[in-house]
Amino acid sequence: MNPDISRERENASFNLEILTNVLDGGAEKTNRRREIESLVIGDPDFQHEDLNFLSRSERYDAAVRKSAQMILKLREYGISDPEEIYSYKTCVHRGRPEPLDLHLGMFLPTLLNQSSPAQLETFFMPAWNLEIIGTYAQTEMGHGTHIRALETTATYDPSTQEFVLNSPTISSIKWWPGGLGKTSNHAIVLAQLYTQGKCHGLHAFITPIRCMKTHMPLPGVVVGDIGPKFGFDEVDNGYLKLENVRIPRENMLMKYAKVEPDGTYVKPPSDKLTYGTMVFIRSMIVGESARALSKSCTIAIRYSAVRHQSELRPGEPEPQILDYQTQQYKLFPLLATAYAFHFVGQYMSKTYHRISGDINLGDFSELPELHALSAGLKAFTTWAANTGIEVCRMSCGGHGYSRCSSLPDIYVTFTPTCTYEGENTVMMLQTARYLVKSYKQARAGQQLTGIVSYLNESQSRIQPHSVSTRPNVVSINDLASLVEAYKFRAAKLVEVAAKNLQLELQHSKSNEDAWNNSSIDLVRASDAHCHYVVVKLFAAKLSEIGDEAVHSVLSTLALLYALYGVAQNSGDFLKAGLLSVSQLDQISQRLKGLLLEIRPNAVALVDAFDYRDEMLNSSLGRYDGNVYEHMFEWAKRSPLNHTEVHESHNKYLKPLRSKL
Amino acid sequence: MNPDISRERENASFNLEILTNVLDGGAEKTNRRREIESLVIGDPDFQHEDLNFLSRSERYDAAVRKSAQMILKLREYGISDPEEIYSYKTCVHRGRPEPLDLHLGMFLPTLLNQSSPAQLETFFMPAWNLEIIGTYAQTEMGHGTHIRALETTATYDPSTQEFVLNSPTISSIKWWPGGLGKTSNHAIVLAQLYTQGKCHGLHAFITPIRCMKTHMPLPGVVVGDIGPKFGFDEVDNGYLKLENVRIPRENMLMKYAKVEPDGTYVKPPSDKLTYGTMVFIRSMIVGESARALSKSCTIAIRYSAVRHQSELRPGEPEPQILDYQTQQYKLFPLLATAYAFHFVGQYMSKTYHRISGDINLGDFSELPELHALSAGLKAFTTWAANTGIEVCRMSCGGHGYSRCSSLPDIYVTFTPTCTYEGENTVMMLQTARYLVKSYKQARAGQQLTGIVSYLNESQSRIQPHSVSTRPNVVSINDLASLVEAYKFRAAKLVEVAAKNLQLELQHSKSNEDAWNNSSIDLVRASDAHCHYVVVKLFAAKLSEIGDEAVHSVLSTLALLYALYGVAQNSGDFLKAGLLSVSQLDQISQRLKGLLLEIRPNAVALVDAFDYRDEMLNSSLGRYDGNVYEHMFEWAKRSPLNHTEVHESHNKYLKPLRSKL
Repeated sequence: MNPDISRERENASFNLEILTNVLDGGAEKTNRRREIESLVIGDPDFQHEDLNFLSRSERYDAAVRKSAQMILKLREYGISDPEEIYSYKTCVHRGRPEPLDLHLGMFLPTLLNQSSPAQLETFFMPAWNLEIIGTYAQTEMGHGTHIRALETTATYDPSTQEFVLNSPTISSIKWWPGGLGKTSNHAIVLAQLYTQGKCHGLHAFITPIRCMKTHMPLPGVVVGDIGPKFGFDEVDNGYLKLENVRIPRENMLMKYAKVEPDGTYVKPPSDKLTYGTMVFIRSMIVGESARALSKSCTIAIRYSAVRHQSELRPGEPEPQILDYQTQQYKLFPLLATAYAFHFVGQYMSKTYHRISGDINLGDFSELPELHALSAGLKAFTTWAANTGIEVCRMSCGGHGYSRCSSLPDIYVTFTPTCTYEGENTVMMLQTARYLVKSYKQARAGQQLTGIVSYLNESQSRIQPHSVSTRPNVVSINDLASLVEAYKFRAAKLVEVAAKNLQLELQHSKSNEDAWNNSSIDLVRASDAHCHYVVVKLFAAKLSEIGDEAVHSVLSTLALLYALYGVAQNSGDFLKAGLLSVSQLDQISQRLKGLLLEIRPNAVALVDAFDYRDEMLNSSLGRYDGNVYEHMFEWAKRSPLNHTEVHESHNKYLKPLRSKL
Repeated sequence: MNPDISRERENASFNLEILTNVLDGGAEKTNRRREIESLVIGDPDFQHEDLNFLSRSERYDAAVRKSAQMILKLREYGISDPEEIYSYKTCVHRGRPEPLDLHLGMFLPTLLNQSSPAQLETFFMPAWNLEIIGTYAQTEMGHGTHIRALETTATYDPSTQEFVLNSPTISSIKWWPGGLGKTSNHAIVLAQLYTQGKCHGLHAFITPIRCMKTHMPLPGVVVGDIGPKFGFDEVDNGYLKLENVRIPRENMLMKYAKVEPDGTYVKPPSDKLTYGTMVFIRSMIVGESARALSKSCTIAIRYSAVRHQSELRPGEPEPQILDYQTQQYKLFPLLATAYAFHFVGQYMSKTYHRISGDINLGDFSELPELHALSAGLKAFTTWAANTGIEVCRMSCGGHGYSRCSSLPDIYVTFTPTCTYEGENTVMMLQTARYLVKSYKQARAGQQLTGIVSYLNESQSRIQPHSVSTRPNVVSINDLASLVEAYKFRAAKLVEVAAKNLQLELQHSKSNEDAWNNSSIDLVRASDAHCHYVVVKLFAAKLSEIGDEAVHSVLSTLALLYALYGVAQNSGDFLKAGLLSVSQLDQISQRLKGLLLEIRPNAVALVDAFDYRDEMLNSSLGRYDGNVYEHMFEWAKRSPLNHTEVHESHNKYLKPLRSKL
């Protein structure tokens, strides 16, 4: 054990295990998570060479092998709780996506939720037993966000009782679905349904794409891998071009909408259930933001505790880089953010489960708010984590660029969350739509409830012209007061956006143009709303913490999170008259004080995330702090070192000499 | 040609070629650059498979082959002007680093500048003819920024007239030098010189590391590749561990310092010349920031002109995504930034060449200012470009994650500039040191000249307490007035940092602690200083533009750059009383107007950067806009598509079925 990092741990002011339990949601959950981790990490069937040393084809191969093993073992151990399956999978693939993700996470659930009983009978067991391996083929080359414009067609032919599937243009080729390129033999294809000469919009079709015996593509099916990406080397994201591919009528998912044998179309009753799935996935992504950022902070903070560089005081040994104020100012606000997002993730998950009970009883009343919240928070947290991972990486100096740090991998694995499951700017605008609607309702005298209820107050308390003269009500050391400040800022920015939208409506050609011409303001309003929600939920979490020492350190983090956000957005707070110039100066000084308060607990605060070395897979982030020894051992195994003399030397450099 | 992108070009309000010439620094330079590009791009010896489809070893192999060819051809064509060599090299390797970079860019120049005449005689021609291939081994595993603490030792043994080189610890292993792992047979090793029982600090030693015949590592030399990184696949960044490696006395570079045969040490006269090289490289990096960002903007803006998505107006076709205000707000400020950095890069290069004339005549008077400026601007521009590239990538939706977009490659190739040649935060603090020193001089009554002369005025015009009540002097449509506002902001933040430093000195244990405890403020002061310089230089450039149409479009960009910066840092401007709340609202509206003004010229403005398709190597950024066709063709060539059925299917998935 590196003595620097041991000393850090001795200095911690709180009991680690208590905080870990808070993060996991209880001691029992911590224990079960650890059990599952031990099960996987000790299992020789999941061992393999460091993925960084493999080609993409080898990485895909290793991932398929582990996924196949995983399926066997999950059944062997009887692990069936979705959260536990998720833990197990995360551990097997160390947080990376894998080739069967879409089969397990989309194909099977969609079958379950959207099949008629007869279809379930036909397809479910073969899919459960991986005779059918499926994916979910929605996105096309030319269409992602706006799914109504998808171009793939499924035209019903009553003479044979088949659908004829086609990709009529280049831009209609299905593009990106995971597992589509090489792994799957079926796809649930989203296509425009045509029957009796009429288009009935998007429907889902179970489409065989490869022969179940030979695994060769079926006639009319052009399928393959879309090529290398920024990360996601283990996944065969694929393309699919359909040329008059015929499938039986029974392959349209018919729990809701139906096409009868003669071609008569029967409408679905409601589509709110699929809306729920989207909300669920986006809520999960908030948790992913927390995990990606907390891993990155773990690596950067542990490394900063063992790395010594430059001199603070002449003649003294080089200090730990964690003692530099600039390093603390990079990392500690991110650490606070990781904690904040963990708690927001917990809240989202809890709320989703609470509300989905209501949804199952037919009560959709809370869904719009949760939908708006999950969209905005998905964007807010993924953007922040995305930037934060890179700040962590660059705070490690040169070694952050090495794959052995794991930071490049965390980044490339995480960054797609900014785009998939709802592009972030689009998400922010969805939330803004809800905020503007709520604002208008409040102005019309309706009493709002839930998280937007602050827009009620805005009617009475945020008057035009009074804003810049509002007395300063914020106490910069009081979290509750800061929550209020964030609330007023959000209210103010929602108001600005709504008013600008109103103004635009007076000159614009259409509502849509007005919306577009106000969208910068709308995104800012959503951002401020989400920021408020995060600060509020962090503050609320504190009231649940019984342990005094843990409460104290989390309070410091929460205050840092809140004040850092004020400093980064000081213009908004000044403009709204929520803070004075001299308070801003006090905040700058207070922030420096908070960094010093967190400093002795920094390593313990990342230890509490409880990532095993095997999960982090980072030379820089090792628990024992023996960074350099490990880097050297790792580097020796680099494929370029398999031979002492690389063949290029004899092929090109040696002959060159004689020509010069 | 995609009709959308043709239409964009027809709408441009200015003559493209004139702007390209402005960017290149004259029509002649444009022509010569194009000549060189044609020479390389038409040359079959430089053709190869898309690098994205190759393993790292294959990529390294391809790079060595091209570098060897390049050396031959440069001599064949008689290209010897450093700028032209740089152009040629950039074109051969498409902006990527290559295995001989350190040989050509560091080993040969260091030999030339620091060898005694006898050493030049011995080493230069073999190195010129690539019998000796060298690298520059400075950074160690445990030491980057603070080179005085390097641990490698070179101990003089007068009995054999040799130096004995050692890596005494794990952390002293040389780590990162490009070309060290597999390519080089020599290294200039930076080591602590010991002679006659005394350490004389760092000196440079020409150290043979591999046999010149067999290319095998020499006895006592442990050398290899440091393993895969975030990008830089073509370069064998290496490690070097020296175990009692003996080299002749004549291998210490002895133009300045010397060790005599008996071990007597002779001091160097001055080290200011090496200081100059650092300034030169950092100035060059400013230009790299401009190039990386302008490439990214080219790709994102062209793609946004051909990509259609969602609906603005119901019933109408999906609009070009470039018509979304949020998309414009992401991309156009970055476009303006790319232009700004191009002009700053030109200024830095011109200034360096002007000053290096003086330096050669022994006049070092302007060097400190240039040193401070190059450090800060290196950090300021690389950070901005680094973030900007990712914004461009994510503005392309899902396809930005594909390697065929080239955006991931631009990012990983560029991001190390934030760390190498001076870690950015360290750079900002170096600039801050100069600013604080200047501030103190001004307060002491000295009249400052040059770029910091604004700190003079601050003495008379920025009085304590008067700041928040300063009348608003800024006209938001007048660039000159905005330059003044940026100047006052910088002056204010330098003052804040200097005063906080002064306060800290009253409680801190030492100057160094006080410095550390003020470093957040110091970095902000540098940042504001650099921001001011960039706005000022952009404004200054406009006065050189004769063509009215080009002047007009660049003026719009400059205004966008300046106002966007104000909006992003509104707290500073409000706090300093430079702008009122209502002016900030006007700026928000004005920014939207500027986006609309730039919109019709956006594609032409990126066309003017004049990157050939072969240089961009991006499906999304193609000049002809035929994005989807090209992506599909590219994807088909993915290595995973070499066989229809991946072997993992038969190895793992097929057998799995029988077990379930």
